[in-house]
Amino acid sequence: MKKILITGATIVTMDEEQPDHFCGDLLVEGDPITAIVSRPERIEQAGIDRVIEGNKWILLPGLINTHGHAAMTLLRGYADDLPLMRWLEDKIWPAEKALTGDDVYWGTLLAIAEMLKGGTTTFTDMYFFMDRAAEAVAESKIRAMLSRGLAGVGLAGGRMLREAESFINNWQGKENGRINTSLGPHAPYTCPPGFLKKVMAIAARTGRPLQIHLAETAGEVERCRQKYGLSPVELMEHVGLFQFEVIAAHCVHLSDRDISILAQQGVGVAHNPGSNLKLGSGIAPLNELLKAGVKVSLGTDGAGSNNNLDLWEEIFLAALLPKGIHQDPTVIPARAALKMATTNGAEVLRLPRLGKLKVGYRADLIGLKGDLPHLNPIFDPSAHLVYSAAAADVSLVMVDGQILVDNGSLTTLDEERIIYEASRRAYRLTGKKGRDNAGGLHEGNNFNYQR
Amino acid sequence: MKKILITGATIVTMDEEQPDHFCGDLLVEGDPITAIVSRPERIEQAGIDRVIEGNKWILLPGLINTHGHAAMTLLRGYADDLPLMRWLEDKIWPAEKALTGDDVYWGTLLAIAEMLKGGTTTFTDMYFFMDRAAEAVAESKIRAMLSRGLAGVGLAGGRMLREAESFINNWQGKENGRINTSLGPHAPYTCPPGFLKKVMAIAARTGRPLQIHLAETAGEVERCRQKYGLSPVELMEHVGLFQFEVIAAHCVHLSDRDISILAQQGVGVAHNPGSNLKLGSGIAPLNELLKAGVKVSLGTDGAGSNNNLDLWEEIFLAALLPKGIHQDPTVIPARAALKMATTNGAEVLRLPRLGKLKVGYRADLIGLKGDLPHLNPIFDPSAHLVYSAAAADVSLVMVDGQILVDNGSLTTLDEERIIYEASRRAYRLTGKKGRDNAGGLHEGNNFNYQR
Repeated sequence: MKKILITGATIVTMDEEQPDHFCGDLLVEGDPITAIVSRPERIEQAGIDRVIEGNKWILLPGLINTHGHAAMTLLRGYADDLPLMRWLEDKIWPAEKALTGDDVYWGTLLAIAEMLKGGTTTFTDMYFFMDRAAEAVAESKIRAMLSRGLAGVGLAGGRMLREAESFINNWQGKENGRINTSLGPHAPYTCPPGFLKKVMAIAARTGRPLQIHLAETAGEVERCRQKYGLSPVELMEHVGLFQFEVIAAHCVHLSDRDISILAQQGVGVAHNPGSNLKLGSGIAPLNELLKAGVKVSLGTDGAGSNNNLDLWEEIFLAALLPKGIHQDPTVIPARAALKMATTNGAEVLRLPRLGKLKVGYRADLIGLKGDLPHLNPIFDPSAHLVYSAAAADVSLVMVDGQILVDNGSLTTLDEERIIYEASRRAYRLTGKKGRDNAGGLHEGNNFNYQR
Repeated sequence: MKKILITGATIVTMDEEQPDHFCGDLLVEGDPITAIVSRPERIEQAGIDRVIEGNKWILLPGLINTHGHAAMTLLRGYADDLPLMRWLEDKIWPAEKALTGDDVYWGTLLAIAEMLKGGTTTFTDMYFFMDRAAEAVAESKIRAMLSRGLAGVGLAGGRMLREAESFINNWQGKENGRINTSLGPHAPYTCPPGFLKKVMAIAARTGRPLQIHLAETAGEVERCRQKYGLSPVELMEHVGLFQFEVIAAHCVHLSDRDISILAQQGVGVAHNPGSNLKLGSGIAPLNELLKAGVKVSLGTDGAGSNNNLDLWEEIFLAALLPKGIHQDPTVIPARAALKMATTNGAEVLRLPRLGKLKVGYRADLIGLKGDLPHLNPIFDPSAHLVYSAAAADVSLVMVDGQILVDNGSLTTLDEERIIYEASRRAYRLTGKKGRDNAGGLHEGNNFNYQR
């Protein structure tokens, strides 16, 4: 059992039972945090395997990304600035048809490399070939909530359901609990009520939560009302989905009644402000959701529509958009935005002992270099984390007590190889030939494009 | 005259007469770019002082920040999430009253350090003690457009006008043309028409442009209409301001008539989406401005209200906000957002031979490391620059042919000392006592705060 001590850091615990922030030491023994003290107290350094001088750092819980499609990194920047249906039908779906398990493995590793370097310690995934995604999670040692994406409108629905259940049975709780599973019915418009009943039966058998895209676009809501006379949220309530633990992604177009259903039924909402803007979906009523008591966390969505997996951007947008929309600088203060990315993330994913720096909690934590121009002077660390910081400021990342990013570098992954493997697969999938430039791909040149 | 050659980079010239992007070499001799070639052509390496292997880089023109208050870095994160008038009256103005020239010098250096590291090669400033700001510009070798802030509602108006004119006479064109000056009447509500006439007289004598805050908040527009029966834009037209070259910052609350005045009069608009959101001012009608033919550039505003000077965030917001507002992913495509931060910036500031990578243009350019997870695969470099890249990806920064950031590090500035000096001044100005933590400030610990 390895003992790691971080000394003299500015600690932002996100725990309401501790002060907002303080200077102190934090001790990790194995996977949990075993001690946190505030100056002038210090933790004894004898018998420690590694002491990390944290005096220029801000330490906080690892960020929790509650919605995404990891291997879509392969389609990052492949098709931008297009209308949604042209993007999907002409670009994304044809490329995805050619996906192999190996592609998903490398695409997921690319996503994990990016997320870890930016301080995300838990991510959520809904995609295909999930055994291969789980392998990538196991190797990298990140924490994840994985689901096999499910659609009930084609012929493959039955096979998908069997794969989803066996995926849960094979992987749930593996890797010291770092791998978590869920069910991934894609959306009400791809999963009719009859199909959702089958998904719910698996949820009942396995006890696992469900992830679903909900009320993402105005068109979806309109078509749902036409077909069922109900909004997507009302339809899901009617079907009985909310009797299970549900992570509802997007939730952009909501009526007051929808918001109160989400609150009453304890549905967790994964807010994806960047993707919602970029795809032209709209701006979710974040302030209204929080006021109604809905538990809201943050997600990046896939890199195909974001185009990165930078949760700091989502924190920033979550805090800023409502201020602009309501013309009120006091809504969504820094601390509330930071909560969405940490404690709320853990609650929405139903992952215990995560999202706070607290004795007995799992040691998923990150350290940001504070000695950078854009983080000085410092008055309130939480404000800096929300309004000034960036993913690249993350220097230390620990998941389950293991250091996965050390001085900004990945410890479990071969970044260069991942970029190489993922990129060449991306060019194959999209039919873009990598241009051979000064030696080409094999010499590590990833700047391949076709005019 | 130093010759610097960058080889094999992905070059995004922002010049419509060249291809959108290509792989090639770029040569700088002294302050201008003297050659750009596309593969398979190469530039001869004999007689070159420094050859930079650019094969993992995206090269583009340096970013141009067209609105800000540099030394407000001293108040970064000092007062967030407050209503605008409480922010100004209780926090910002009292702190600014205690400002000295030395404070402005160090605060400006902190701003320059941050901006250079993030790829901003030209910035715009409106503040006090501008001789000291100009000193910081001269020492750092960045390019700037500086103005002494002017207000005509107090007793100091006459003195300010004299200072502004002598500042222009002393500094315009200094440092090989890197220092540019302008007049900085703060806003219509602080500069009544009679005072603006005096400012315009100086503009006529010196031939320098004017910077002004315009239509930033709904309240400002309402009060202006009450007082003058005109919107701020109409009032400025009426006063004759637009007969001069004007950089109008913010322009959030505009009527259709305002927009057509801005277009007809050739007013440059500095769009500050981050600050406008954070202060709760609102969201500017960017798409409508561009459609009307208004020249729009980007600005960060001061770090007191942003809370950083990261122009990449503004590019991102400029591209994303209109997509979400209009629920249309095709508005403000990546290229348009990038243009605002480069070519439009040069046009709005009326700075010749800037904003493009082009033979004969001044060598203000930046290189981003492309071998990072979040920038791969790469299909379209412009899309990556807008939707995926971040300030920390900038590795090389050149201004006027001189390398100011080399492999991510500042070459002209002592970053550690600047952070130390600026921070201790910030704590003095705000009355926050730096907490002595493990040796305190003098040992480089800038994490000083007061609960």
